[in-house]
Amino acid sequence: MRCQPPLPMFLDVALIGFGHVGRRFARLLAERGGMLLAEQGVTVRIVGISTNRHGHVWAAEGVDVPAALSRVEAGRRLSDDEDEWLTPPAIINLMRGVSTGLRVVVETTTLDIAAGQPAIAYVQQAFAAGCHVVTANKGPAAFAYAGLRDEARAAGVSFLFEGAVMDGIPIFNLARETLPGVEVLGFRGVVNSTTNHILSALEDGEAFDPALARMQDVGIAEADPSLDIDGWDAAAKVAALANVLMDARITPLDVRREGIGPRSADAALRAIEAGRRLRLVAAAARLDDGSVEASVGPVELQAGDLLANLRGQANALVLRTDLLGEIAVCQLTGGLTQTAYALLVDLVTICRRHAPLPAGAPRRIP
Amino acid sequence: MRCQPPLPMFLDVALIGFGHVGRRFARLLAERGGMLLAEQGVTVRIVGISTNRHGHVWAAEGVDVPAALSRVEAGRRLSDDEDEWLTPPAIINLMRGVSTGLRVVVETTTLDIAAGQPAIAYVQQAFAAGCHVVTANKGPAAFAYAGLRDEARAAGVSFLFEGAVMDGIPIFNLARETLPGVEVLGFRGVVNSTTNHILSALEDGEAFDPALARMQDVGIAEADPSLDIDGWDAAAKVAALANVLMDARITPLDVRREGIGPRSADAALRAIEAGRRLRLVAAAARLDDGSVEASVGPVELQAGDLLANLRGQANALVLRTDLLGEIAVCQLTGGLTQTAYALLVDLVTICRRHAPLPAGAPRRIP
Repeated sequence: MRCQPPLPMFLDVALIGFGHVGRRFARLLAERGGMLLAEQGVTVRIVGISTNRHGHVWAAEGVDVPAALSRVEAGRRLSDDEDEWLTPPAIINLMRGVSTGLRVVVETTTLDIAAGQPAIAYVQQAFAAGCHVVTANKGPAAFAYAGLRDEARAAGVSFLFEGAVMDGIPIFNLARETLPGVEVLGFRGVVNSTTNHILSALEDGEAFDPALARMQDVGIAEADPSLDIDGWDAAAKVAALANVLMDARITPLDVRREGIGPRSADAALRAIEAGRRLRLVAAAARLDDGSVEASVGPVELQAGDLLANLRGQANALVLRTDLLGEIAVCQLTGGLTQTAYALLVDLVTICRRHAPLPAGAPRRIP
Repeated sequence: MRCQPPLPMFLDVALIGFGHVGRRFARLLAERGGMLLAEQGVTVRIVGISTNRHGHVWAAEGVDVPAALSRVEAGRRLSDDEDEWLTPPAIINLMRGVSTGLRVVVETTTLDIAAGQPAIAYVQQAFAAGCHVVTANKGPAAFAYAGLRDEARAAGVSFLFEGAVMDGIPIFNLARETLPGVEVLGFRGVVNSTTNHILSALEDGEAFDPALARMQDVGIAEADPSLDIDGWDAAAKVAALANVLMDARITPLDVRREGIGPRSADAALRAIEAGRRLRLVAAAARLDDGSVEASVGPVELQAGDLLANLRGQANALVLRTDLLGEIAVCQLTGGLTQTAYALLVDLVTICRRHAPLPAGAPRRIP
């Protein structure tokens, strides 16, 4: 028997979406990801990128990522070729033909909160093409978790979305990797940064409209802030959390939802006067009949409550469990790098699960 | 080629120490562990138990655990036989001869905080016998982490100790499993429940000595409370955390340490009057020269600080990281079941790493 050095195993990535999150991910992958994934025995390549407004690019041997970043950030198209045919479905389809290694679709498109699209469709196309899926979108887990989980299992691929809630802070990974056998009975949290920024400003005496305008000026709130202030973003996160951690099988439309508005300024100050704090609390609990009740709305909290003391961008989630009582995870600083890291850590998970190991090696590299 | 059903793979456990934690672990293993470990493809058996005051028992086919629990809790010896020769080293040595499966020493002896013994010696004997080690003791990681980690690697076994800090709340598992590639730059936390209970009582106006006596009455503080109130327990936890998360290579003796005492009552009330809170803060940070500075002592915290609002048994750890900024993990309820769960989750990790999988299976069961 002749000994041959093993062929390099490629992890080929198609980026569907190349906005702020997708680009930060591409940078983080270049800076940190290569080495991190090499420890798992794979060589990572971005082989395709699809954008809404900057065209598309495909290169089975690996895209020139620095050039792609420069082009998009200079407002140019990704490719000088006629590339209109390279839609996301076409790129996902091309993934069938790349390498014999791991194939991953990293999905970061803009989400339609009312239905979870187009993210869900891309996820399903990726499964059908034999690709693992990593997404920063809440939509797939919020609207269609159980079905997608089963489709992924049937296709023998992974479906991961750590970045969907609380950026890169481990929530789904925490439950899956570090809490085996623990049942989540319910949770409550502060999971939307824009509303928390606004509530902090209201507590400092600002009125609602100027506070919102200021948040929009500094880029914390969107031009159309309704997804945040009406509680839709938090409702999608509650649904994703409840579906994954509690097998709830709900959608954001099932979440009892109340947002914040101009009247919240008085409410926030009244709470302070009473020694309490107003926070937009996202919560879920299992009812006696086995179903899960989920809600988003402003709640007056005792001043000593962990959630009451989250100001600005800080987020937290308190899990109520059977074996460990209450556990809280807090993100004191959030942002794009954190979300990009969530995508990267999901790639590591895919390697840990699916990259073959040499004969006789332990199942995991400790 | 004939197909044969695979032989059951055993996970054989020797319990060194069978006090409150060891017994709760044995119960949790019976109630939950069997099923949880079966999902990992193994059948768990306790084959030996060693106690300080209730003798020892060994049965390669599996100890009668309910009987062992009843005997010890009735104040009887574990075995009617002459078993003095079955010391912990003898039991660890017997582990060499059990099954061809996974062999694990679960170590929960009483710790000598001044040197980490006898836990360290047992851990080393277990490695030498080819056993994986799970311990709830802080001593090994606090006094000898780097050396033990290297010994474990050389022996091809795992060395795990999730229960050493904050009971069953994932800290070491969180960093290892969910934060690959993230560097911990420092941390601060409230990690000793007894002192936190006492400080909460002082804030409520109690004097130190009556508060301590009350904690001793209800079993929160030890008869000899000096390990807690002098900061030794927290110092051992800081050393373990710094060694594992920051490669610090320190011992509890290197931790700048100040405890609490009768004068803390005034200090706690003065803090409250100033809108702040006194907490025993355990902290570590990397200095410019690459070394790690670690400390335990009472600190006045702003009222909005996450650590300031921990009362009673609540613990928390705030990690300062390069990629994710500050992350906090909080244990709002603690206790024996949590510590027992930490031992169980370490067994799951051993299976995930070392239990063989059928040919062609993914490296991990998702």
